[in-house]
Amino acid sequence: MSTPSLLILPGDGIGPEVMAEVVKIIDWYGEKRDLKFDVTMDLVGGAAYDKHGVPLADETMAKAQEVDAVLLGAVGGPKYDVLDFSVKPERGLLRLRKEMDLFANLRPAQCFDALADFSSLKKDVVAGLDIMIVRELTSGIYFGEPRGIITEGNERVGINTQRYTESEIRRVAIAAFELAMKRGKKLCSMEKANVMESGILWREVVEEVAKDYPEVAVSHMYADNGAMQLVRAPKQFDVIVTDNLFGDILSDCAAMLTGSLGMLPSASLGAPMENGRPKAMYEPVHGSAPDIAGQGKANPIACILSFAMALRYSFDQGDEATRLETAIEKVLADGVRTGDLLADEGVTPVSTSGMGDAIIAALDASL
Amino acid sequence: MSTPSLLILPGDGIGPEVMAEVVKIIDWYGEKRDLKFDVTMDLVGGAAYDKHGVPLADETMAKAQEVDAVLLGAVGGPKYDVLDFSVKPERGLLRLRKEMDLFANLRPAQCFDALADFSSLKKDVVAGLDIMIVRELTSGIYFGEPRGIITEGNERVGINTQRYTESEIRRVAIAAFELAMKRGKKLCSMEKANVMESGILWREVVEEVAKDYPEVAVSHMYADNGAMQLVRAPKQFDVIVTDNLFGDILSDCAAMLTGSLGMLPSASLGAPMENGRPKAMYEPVHGSAPDIAGQGKANPIACILSFAMALRYSFDQGDEATRLETAIEKVLADGVRTGDLLADEGVTPVSTSGMGDAIIAALDASL
Ligand SMILES: [Mg+2]
Ligand SMILES: [Mg+2]
Repeated sequence: MSTPSLLILPGDGIGPEVMAEVVKIIDWYGEKRDLKFDVTMDLVGGAAYDKHGVPLADETMAKAQEVDAVLLGAVGGPKYDVLDFSVKPERGLLRLRKEMDLFANLRPAQCFDALADFSSLKKDVVAGLDIMIVRELTSGIYFGEPRGIITEGNERVGINTQRYTESEIRRVAIAAFELAMKRGKKLCSMEKANVMESGILWREVVEEVAKDYPEVAVSHMYADNGAMQLVRAPKQFDVIVTDNLFGDILSDCAAMLTGSLGMLPSASLGAPMENGRPKAMYEPVHGSAPDIAGQGKANPIACILSFAMALRYSFDQGDEATRLETAIEKVLADGVRTGDLLADEGVTPVSTSGMGDAIIAALDASL
Repeated sequence: MSTPSLLILPGDGIGPEVMAEVVKIIDWYGEKRDLKFDVTMDLVGGAAYDKHGVPLADETMAKAQEVDAVLLGAVGGPKYDVLDFSVKPERGLLRLRKEMDLFANLRPAQCFDALADFSSLKKDVVAGLDIMIVRELTSGIYFGEPRGIITEGNERVGINTQRYTESEIRRVAIAAFELAMKRGKKLCSMEKANVMESGILWREVVEEVAKDYPEVAVSHMYADNGAMQLVRAPKQFDVIVTDNLFGDILSDCAAMLTGSLGMLPSASLGAPMENGRPKAMYEPVHGSAPDIAGQGKANPIACILSFAMALRYSFDQGDEATRLETAIEKVLADGVRTGDLLADEGVTPVSTSGMGDAIIAALDASL
């Protein structure tokens, strides 16, 4: 196997700070586990605009199409609010998602025991939570035509169209089943087949794909019941697959169950490339947090967990991903905290690099 | 003012049992508060099918159009599963909603302190919770055309259409603002105006209506953030207004926050009638629970709270509604429990009528 390639786009705000800690982790894997990556660093968002006048240069886009995985920090900041819509930092991110055709958005909701108190839910309901929501990301009601505000008679009418083809449903279902095979072999598909034809088709196609994965226990749930069950007993789920709109709401609902939004990674996967690996971009769910940028206060864990997802889903290094997640769990259990994770008075927060160093130390101890 | 009229449709399963307790409460108001109602009892659902061969007789439908409010118990049961779709018990309920044009579905999420332990959320997050979600019920993506599963090229495509006219948005917004005026004068409207034109129109119309309610503090929130905020800190909300689809998911999410789904009432309101009162139907959120029907085990509180909603929203008897809710709160604080509310060993449950009697006693004590 050739050396796996990685394009790192730290972006804006706290992006470069948290990504610096990821780079330390990557170096550790090269030195201590002989797991080397061909790393390219480049610009995205405001940082790319400052240099190139666009939030993503064509060469960067071309590179993203070539590599095994893209790792992105965060984009945006008040400095760029005045820019024209077409060159705003977020357009760089959207261009990556669109041109790489990243149709499967993986949103894990994990709750580390040591942080369970941050949740608004009772500790026993969320401690150890580890679910994965797969959201269809490139179709559905946010993209369907016709759309717009038209005038009919003497009033306006707002129109959006939910539109899913079989192949759009099939490819995200396959992505979810593949994930389920790497996890607990349990998958729940959510839609509103009771009132929506697009939900009926969704359910049928998921059932079809299920035939190729006889080991996976499949269930179907109406999305409103899904929201209830996520609040009532989230640990009943392992992998959830759902459409763009339901996934938008349910993934955020699930994220909030953990109580630590700043801890959550994500992945967006596309079709398999020639080498069999899916096109992939990994990024923390949190934003660029310009208010604390450059002060060494940012929590790098969500970005490091995004790299752990890359290890598992792009590089078939599930054991090493687990090693990294376990190291983070240990550091948190030991009480190491960045400022955002402080609840008790009297605990001194560590810096961004302090957290990275603690995780490196835990990785060393794992050998 | 003429005697207010009430059509009572106990329905199937536990419906008649829980409604019998509501009738005791109604009689109490007649005797002790000189608040008399012109009550008609009739059949709906399987009970109507057994007698008329249809789940709602035309005469019953006509009566529902005439009265000031309809109070419904529950419909359905395994006995009727074999019936043709067109005469299933649920069709009776749907006919009422459709022909009365009940476009505003009011879904309170209330959490009585005494029952806060039933929630999966921490006690301080939900104790005393009292929010009201107003869901548009007759339009949106569950009804819009075109819809269906078509074939394009060599594959099928599932299509549904979200379609909201200004007047559809306006009337539900007005209903929500009227509610906000009777409550805490705070209203949050939820949509996805960032990615949906129907959401943009929704927000514009809500802003227009807001001008007629200068006392109400209005805010707007994206629906995915709404789901997060409901989980994180639900008490930040008072009245929430949203469309059919988002309301479907968010109202169930909010209901589950309370942990006692069997306690929740609902109302569905339509346009004002000649007397100025909105067309209205009140019903518990729970179903007909055929497994415990006829055994005196059912909890009548959701149905009694539905009558309290009728007092407040159809009969302008807000003080008497509060009296009833306070009586229920006291009974629960005293530890009176039907079987569904039992958590501790050693507590003996009361029967359906035992709960009704306890609430009557608390009403007596309130005088
Ligand atoms: Mg979202
Ligand atoms: Mg629902």
